Amino acid sequence: MRILGIDPGLNTTGYGVLEINDRKLRLVEAGIIRSKPSGTLSERIQEIYDGVTEAIDSLKPEVLALEKLYAHYDRPTTAILMGHARGVICLAAAEHGIEVEDYAATQVKKTLTGNGRAPKTQMQLAIQHELNLANLPEPADVADALAIAFCHYCVWRGQRVANQSADP
Amino acid sequence: MRILGIDPGLNTTGYGVLEINDRKLRLVEAGIIRSKPSGTLSERIQEIYDGVTEAIDSLKPEVLALEKLYAHYDRPTTAILMGHARGVICLAAAEHGIEVEDYAATQVKKTLTGNGRAPKTQMQLAIQHELNLANLPEPADVADALAIAFCHYCVWRGQRVANQSADP
Repeated sequence: MRILGIDPGLNTTGYGVLEINDRKLRLVEAGIIRSKPSGTLSERIQEIYDGVTEAIDSLKPEVLALEKLYAHYDRPTTAILMGHARGVICLAAAEHGIEVEDYAATQVKKTLTGNGRAPKTQMQLAIQHELNLANLPEPADVADALAIAFCHYCVWRGQRVANQSADP
Repeated sequence: MRILGIDPGLNTTGYGVLEINDRKLRLVEAGIIRSKPSGTLSERIQEIYDGVTEAIDSLKPEVLALEKLYAHYDRPTTAILMGHARGVICLAAAEHGIEVEDYAATQVKKTLTGNGRAPKTQMQLAIQHELNLANLPEPADVADALAIAFCHYCVWRGQRVANQSADP
């Protein structure tokens, strides 16, 4: 199974694909989709959509993991703009028949570090450790995307174990 | 020139196309794009995107008019969900090379009725009058979509008059 984790942003969208094969987890690819800050909102959204579509086409994930919707009471306009980016990412998933699973930021942090309020550097270190990477995943958007994919992996693995224990 | 006005919603998205020909304004088509309330967010967004793409393909507007982004401080999650719908509408416009113009709800209301806080029924009546329609545009989403398109028409006409006056 391949899990595509995405951390959406209007300027830089991080993505990362994890593969589970024979109970082993490995990083397939991770990177950044950039959109021109000089572009209109529509143009920037199109760049995100094209980038995500390209990633899905080439990396063929079965599931897409995203951070759960949440309301920034302090920055409501940013949250709405992020909704635009999230909308075209969900569209790309729907067009490829890929399920979207979302996880609260606190759940992602807690899964990786045991601390729902872990700082960015701790998250990057945890991802580096879990995926056995030579270097710290940079920039932070890539680490965030991998963290969300990893969170889905843990939930999926937990459900599998639960199902197997329930079998007679 | 053809103006496509859209009033996005996760359940029903209103749309309406106005045409300016020989200084006359006429309604080309208006209607509703529905998405299944039982669908996932991604499926519903895809239905909106497909509906808007179909409308653009068949009605060939030169410009798309939308309500300006604004933060509902009382309903932030609704605003973020609306951002998803707005995102795929902007994407459809970008893919067709159509410019997106947005207007604040108060500007749309003021343009049509002189009152930035006009109630829905007053807006429907004003649109019926301006477009010389036999019936009140129903449901309200259709009237809202036409009102946004009409607002863009007024701004465009105002700019044309200003440019002509400025010519030597």
